[in-house]
Amino acid sequence: MSNKFDIAILGGGPAGYVAAERAGAKGMRVVIFDKRALGGVCLNEGCIPTKTLLNSAKVLENAQEAGKYGINIESTISIDFGKIMKRKDKVVRKLVSGVGAKMKHIQAEVVMAEAVIKEKRADVITLTADGKDYQASRLLICTGSEAAVPSIPGLDKSIVMTNREILQLKKLPESLVIIGGGVIGTEFADFFNAMGTKVTVIEMLPEILTGVDEDIAAFVRKEFTKRGIDYHLNAKVTELRGKEVIFEKEGEVFSITGDEVLLSVGRKSNVAGIGLENIGVELARNGIKIDQHCRTNIPNVYAAGDVTGFSLLAHTASREGEVAVNHMLGRKDVMRYNAIPGVVYTHPEIAGVGLTEAVAREKGIEVEIRQLPMAYAGRFIAENEGKDGFCKVIVGKKYREILGVHMVGGACSEMIWGACALIEAQLRVQDVEEIVFPHPTVSEIIKETIFAF
Amino acid sequence: MSNKFDIAILGGGPAGYVAAERAGAKGMRVVIFDKRALGGVCLNEGCIPTKTLLNSAKVLENAQEAGKYGINIESTISIDFGKIMKRKDKVVRKLVSGVGAKMKHIQAEVVMAEAVIKEKRADVITLTADGKDYQASRLLICTGSEAAVPSIPGLDKSIVMTNREILQLKKLPESLVIIGGGVIGTEFADFFNAMGTKVTVIEMLPEILTGVDEDIAAFVRKEFTKRGIDYHLNAKVTELRGKEVIFEKEGEVFSITGDEVLLSVGRKSNVAGIGLENIGVELARNGIKIDQHCRTNIPNVYAAGDVTGFSLLAHTASREGEVAVNHMLGRKDVMRYNAIPGVVYTHPEIAGVGLTEAVAREKGIEVEIRQLPMAYAGRFIAENEGKDGFCKVIVGKKYREILGVHMVGGACSEMIWGACALIEAQLRVQDVEEIVFPHPTVSEIIKETIFAF
Repeated sequence: MSNKFDIAILGGGPAGYVAAERAGAKGMRVVIFDKRALGGVCLNEGCIPTKTLLNSAKVLENAQEAGKYGINIESTISIDFGKIMKRKDKVVRKLVSGVGAKMKHIQAEVVMAEAVIKEKRADVITLTADGKDYQASRLLICTGSEAAVPSIPGLDKSIVMTNREILQLKKLPESLVIIGGGVIGTEFADFFNAMGTKVTVIEMLPEILTGVDEDIAAFVRKEFTKRGIDYHLNAKVTELRGKEVIFEKEGEVFSITGDEVLLSVGRKSNVAGIGLENIGVELARNGIKIDQHCRTNIPNVYAAGDVTGFSLLAHTASREGEVAVNHMLGRKDVMRYNAIPGVVYTHPEIAGVGLTEAVAREKGIEVEIRQLPMAYAGRFIAENEGKDGFCKVIVGKKYREILGVHMVGGACSEMIWGACALIEAQLRVQDVEEIVFPHPTVSEIIKETIFAF
Repeated sequence: MSNKFDIAILGGGPAGYVAAERAGAKGMRVVIFDKRALGGVCLNEGCIPTKTLLNSAKVLENAQEAGKYGINIESTISIDFGKIMKRKDKVVRKLVSGVGAKMKHIQAEVVMAEAVIKEKRADVITLTADGKDYQASRLLICTGSEAAVPSIPGLDKSIVMTNREILQLKKLPESLVIIGGGVIGTEFADFFNAMGTKVTVIEMLPEILTGVDEDIAAFVRKEFTKRGIDYHLNAKVTELRGKEVIFEKEGEVFSITGDEVLLSVGRKSNVAGIGLENIGVELARNGIKIDQHCRTNIPNVYAAGDVTGFSLLAHTASREGEVAVNHMLGRKDVMRYNAIPGVVYTHPEIAGVGLTEAVAREKGIEVEIRQLPMAYAGRFIAENEGKDGFCKVIVGKKYREILGVHMVGGACSEMIWGACALIEAQLRVQDVEEIVFPHPTVSEIIKETIFAF
């Protein structure tokens, strides 16, 4: 029984590798399978490569605006698209090898092959990969998700790109049509617009960035419109003819052709071909059904991350992986979704956590809301000449507990974790008033907004 | 009795104007005096102007390093020192007028004149300013501090600059000698080095940045040494001859002459000339003595900020002002100093809060310490090519509560407030493990360091 493990992890993304790390740190013997690359979509085709690209866009923007701050650049600033893409690959390679090093450190067995769940007998779960059997007493399924491809007439997957293919572009397109104005679509819109590509976004709903605070989404869309991105809202794509996108808007039919077309209309859980049926794992509407400890219906079989079909965020996946491992080890832990942050790495950045105004309204939760412009914080003025942004805080009407914090502008991606802590620790307005925020920082805007209650 | 107020505030800095805002929001009738400018040293001669200058240095650095990220700048990048200084003045003016607007909003009476405490009879305190009397039932003294000028032979205040005069420089000096490597000296060293000035720092102690984590101070000093700043540690200035600075180091005598000389060896509380003796306010060693509610020995007379002679940070001042106002209004509140953040706005940035390793050692507090390089966070690698930094967390050995978080690198100034919240809410390692940090952010380094316990 040399192939017997304490935990088998099916998928090496942010749910899987973090679960492996935590399990390994507690002395569990770990086997982890991935058919593609450690790090999953997040590291290889999502969070990390896009953030690296967006950083180059930020560096470009900083250089273009340097004159405002007394730094003179006389020549034209040019971009080296090839170098930007190569650097992105380098960063990804470095981080993938970092995950590999972590797996080595915890002495996990890493199997780079497609694995299928074969059977469960008594307490032993068997998986097969590359013709070899692996046995474990617990299983964590975290096979993630892939870009959803809707059945639009004429859609040819060899012509239209998803997040995977667009990250492999060799040449900067002159024009790009993005179908879907969610987080992925909006981040790519920002990057390619900064690079000089003519970007058009087609969004089915009345506003981009579903799930983000509505005022923030509108703010960013207006800002991007000024920068030359074209938005078509309430627009439904009805047909594709090669790289020509046909869509309907308010009863009229439009057509637009891009050098490239990006499809970013959602994600689909990877539940097929992994042998779920062999042990009878139950599915919910969008993925594997789990309880608050990330257990499936089968004892000792857990699931975490995008494969469960909700949240669809790398840090949710990691936390679910941790909850699963904690539960396996008998440590009390419960997955909570009320303090999961969401960040959009556009310029300006967007970051939010907890209840939004729209959800409060929809669910009839009694809340109070305050909002202040970022310029209320001195450092924002010092560092963001001619820029704007705001912070919105949502508290419960009865107990005045912090329920949501939503921001746009400044380095809000790095500020938001503190708001997660406030919500997680169930702090009230009065408690936050007693926290000393460093001055001068942009983060003070949170304190000032809370003082406005 | 038209000049009768609920609170008289002596000093319009971060203690005074914030106390005025909070008092005004609670309906108190406020009179606030300042002899110089609303906003105090922080806004006019400290935090805000220096951060604005350092932002220009950051913009310069970003432009110089743009090539790493695929952004090509062919020409030489030049600086316009005059424009940088003018922009700094503009930012200061904007924020000072912002404070003025806040005072107007709460209908405070703003008296721009030197005020002296005249007398206290029964519950009425009288102050005189510009020949006019003002009466209030409570007094908050927050006259701040000024640059300490030690009695060094030959020191001529018309030749040597403090933080005040250096911010008025019309011409970039070719060389600058900085006496004192504390926060102020280090921030100016960074700025002028970035501008191309040859900078030398003379520090009396074995390390710069007293109070900052020792490893972080050493890290930044080494980094700055690579950039061409000369440091003389354990060096005592014994004489000045115009702009020639004579100092002793390990028994030897050295001399160095700068185009300009900056004196940044500490601050002195402003307790003289404001009539403290007229009502018998008791002094401690470095300033006005206060209790945990910021009360002085005289009933209804409070003090906050630098005038109390410890902490000497704008955000401490503001919080003390708030505690004083809360106490006046009968709201339970106590000034705590265990979660006061400290930020140094150099590049790389430094941010810390709570217990340091040195203080734990000195006080014999039993702690555990973990440290991780910033590069453990994927986003740090994506955005900081060839850069470094680290995060150190200190927890109590017995209860595993978070006692200190110290960082260098990235946007840590904007991340640290969350650590203040952790300490203020008395969270333990296990509690923080359950907080979901957004991925990919640099802030995740805090979570990962905590997981290392």
